[in-house]
Amino acid sequence: MATCVVARKVQFCAAHRLHNPGKSDEWNRTTFGRCNNPNFHGHNYEVEITVEGEIDPETGYVVVADRLKRIADEHVVANLDHKNLNLDVPWFTNRLTSAEHLAVYCWDQLAGRIPTGRLTSIRVAENAVNSVEYRGA
Amino acid sequence: MATCVVARKVQFCAAHRLHNPGKSDEWNRTTFGRCNNPNFHGHNYEVEITVEGEIDPETGYVVVADRLKRIADEHVVANLDHKNLNLDVPWFTNRLTSAEHLAVYCWDQLAGRIPTGRLTSIRVAENAVNSVEYRGA
Amino acid sequence: MATCVVARKVQFCAAHRLHNPGKSDEWNRTTFGRCNNPNFHGHNYEVEITVEGEIDPETGYVVVADRLKRIADEHVVANLDHKNLNLDVPWFTNRLTSAEHLAVYCWDQLAGRIPTGRLTSIRVAENAVNSVEYRGA
Amino acid sequence: MATCVVARKVQFCAAHRLHNPGKSDEWNRTTFGRCNNPNFHGHNYEVEITVEGEIDPETGYVVVADRLKRIADEHVVANLDHKNLNLDVPWFTNRLTSAEHLAVYCWDQLAGRIPTGRLTSIRVAENAVNSVEYRGA
Amino acid sequence: MATCVVARKVQFCAAHRLHNPGKSDEWNRTTFGRCNNPNFHGHNYEVEITVEGEIDPETGYVVVADRLKRIADEHVVANLDHKNLNLDVPWFTNRLTSAEHLAVYCWDQLAGRIPTGRLTSIRVAENAVNSVEYRGA
Amino acid sequence: MATCVVARKVQFCAAHRLHNPGKSDEWNRTTFGRCNNPNFHGHNYEVEITVEGEIDPETGYVVVADRLKRIADEHVVANLDHKNLNLDVPWFTNRLTSAEHLAVYCWDQLAGRIPTGRLTSIRVAENAVNSVEYRGA
Repeated sequence: MATCVVARKVQFCAAHRLHNPGKSDEWNRTTFGRCNNPNFHGHNYEVEITVEGEIDPETGYVVVADRLKRIADEHVVANLDHKNLNLDVPWFTNRLTSAEHLAVYCWDQLAGRIPTGRLTSIRVAENAVNSVEYRGA
Repeated sequence: MATCVVARKVQFCAAHRLHNPGKSDEWNRTTFGRCNNPNFHGHNYEVEITVEGEIDPETGYVVVADRLKRIADEHVVANLDHKNLNLDVPWFTNRLTSAEHLAVYCWDQLAGRIPTGRLTSIRVAENAVNSVEYRGA
Repeated sequence: MATCVVARKVQFCAAHRLHNPGKSDEWNRTTFGRCNNPNFHGHNYEVEITVEGEIDPETGYVVVADRLKRIADEHVVANLDHKNLNLDVPWFTNRLTSAEHLAVYCWDQLAGRIPTGRLTSIRVAENAVNSVEYRGA
Repeated sequence: MATCVVARKVQFCAAHRLHNPGKSDEWNRTTFGRCNNPNFHGHNYEVEITVEGEIDPETGYVVVADRLKRIADEHVVANLDHKNLNLDVPWFTNRLTSAEHLAVYCWDQLAGRIPTGRLTSIRVAENAVNSVEYRGA
Repeated sequence: MATCVVARKVQFCAAHRLHNPGKSDEWNRTTFGRCNNPNFHGHNYEVEITVEGEIDPETGYVVVADRLKRIADEHVVANLDHKNLNLDVPWFTNRLTSAEHLAVYCWDQLAGRIPTGRLTSIRVAENAVNSVEYRGA
Repeated sequence: MATCVVARKVQFCAAHRLHNPGKSDEWNRTTFGRCNNPNFHGHNYEVEITVEGEIDPETGYVVVADRLKRIADEHVVANLDHKNLNLDVPWFTNRLTSAEHLAVYCWDQLAGRIPTGRLTSIRVAENAVNSVEYRGA
């Protein structure tokens, strides 16, 4: 049986602000720069979900492509798309809305729901130059 | 003298919300869908600035590349990058923050400041599939 | 009233073959090269639909973004996506399935259905290097 | 001696259909959705070939760039480009033409032919959002 | 007969330097900045060639795709790819190697050689943010 | 504590030539082909810097984004952008200016300067199809 890694990208756009309420305004401005703007800014985010597993000889797939997309749409995109990450997503109430934390969020939403194979990586890109990858705890 | 068209792209990321305060919440939700989210969402915007003019035989340029970039940075990017278009940019106080209006805004900021040649088009893309182009009144 | 041009991209993937049945096999092979392969080949196609019109001050839009997408999905993507252009799309029964003809097909499907503004261009790209644009008869 | 990983992308376009002849039409439609279209559909495929090895101090290369390209063109692109994967490529006679199997096919074609270094990964992308990676048995 | 516009991209990489020998070193540094580096710098250039004409009902093409590519390869890419524009291309002996002039060069090389239809535009991009377009004298 | 991988891309354009002075002209032409052009050629290079570390709960970052960018700009981009790699960068005096060696150069410049986390990979792309990755000695 051949093992293969499957990756699927989904996208969402959202507003957010990097701000640590336990720190001074000065610390926040110095640490986060323009990302600390009080009225938020936003991005077109791209999330790449990677699943590893054996190729099913009946389908040729590691995981049926449409099922993976439906799970990502339901448990990641529906919660984040056209939202304010700081105000509209309860998971971020006590967490900074960094790309690192977004990757952990996506992992938590998806790791237990992959129908065949197992989640091995979440990559989150905020733009064409910055991205993070989380591979689980 | 050869006439040539020069295009330069700049980028910014911003939060915004489409909402017409003179209309009902129902109308706004129906017309703008998820773009009406009360807490804003956001994009990585790309602006392409097009200038037409004669090639200067001393420089080979229609417009000195660095000067065009500096003007765009000062009069467009500095005002919009890491901002909330609805709350942080006075020009939008009484205007919807659609890509169409963003293109008109960029035109108004730049048309009188092009050092050589003349501004012929502003193209604003909100993402990889949606864009608008404004060519002046 | 400001006039603006709005562009939206949609995508589909399809099989096709370039073959003129009124010509010899030799002529077809010479003219179309590998695109004449009897068992078809295929592409991820991208269609950019451009609409020009006045910006509606109540919406900030030339055309409501979601309506344009829905029309394109219903009258272009649904007919072409995951299809064989030669065998599954009746419009091509007596026409070569070139990118040029695809652009004319999209125009014919969309020109009468744009709710506000008017269709001004259809651009069809077969890949990252080849595209055609049709602006109406 | 420094070890380095070299990656090269090649492209081809092809028609294909996902269909398991040992299963019912109903099963095939449910499992493969639109990818089961009887008359095929197609893609612009991208294959990224990764080779790991020591940098040769005489060339600065892990593997001479042109040789790697020529091997990929001869043993992958020539067999797949402008072809119908189901009908024109004997390797797929008894295999589903999924991206996973395409990656295994490319591996089998290339693993024994890398002149210096060793093949470590084949990544196949069907479009901008779906890809698979195979790293050998 | 339907009129259509066909565009094809070709690529080349080259070294160049912006320097006007009739001006002082100071003027050259101020005008061209880092592009004036005495030992040259370089780019991956992209040239998009646009041809307008009627669709030939026998081929479905405005211009046979392979012929256009062969002409571009022979008369543009072969002369510029892996070259130093200042030292290896005689046309630039007395001209600045700006993108504007490159577009004029490509036009001069191609305008008389388009087999069907007529050349309407040459777009030259030096990178992802800067491009110029020349539409003839 | 969650471990995460952060990647940032920077870009530069440069001229270079592949030539081993200890070998014959014939050997150089055969081995490097057009990359051996005596007057140099050039590229728009892209460098992706990957840092792995624990997410700092006070910032949500593995490494403060702006600090990483400033270090890359100061120790990589400033040395290579708009330069001739063979003539302007002393590190290459006795080394071939291959992408492999560029990756090692960037590693040497950055590995000791990452403020939090540790450098795990440098990926250098010369164009859209060729890239190399170096993960340290």
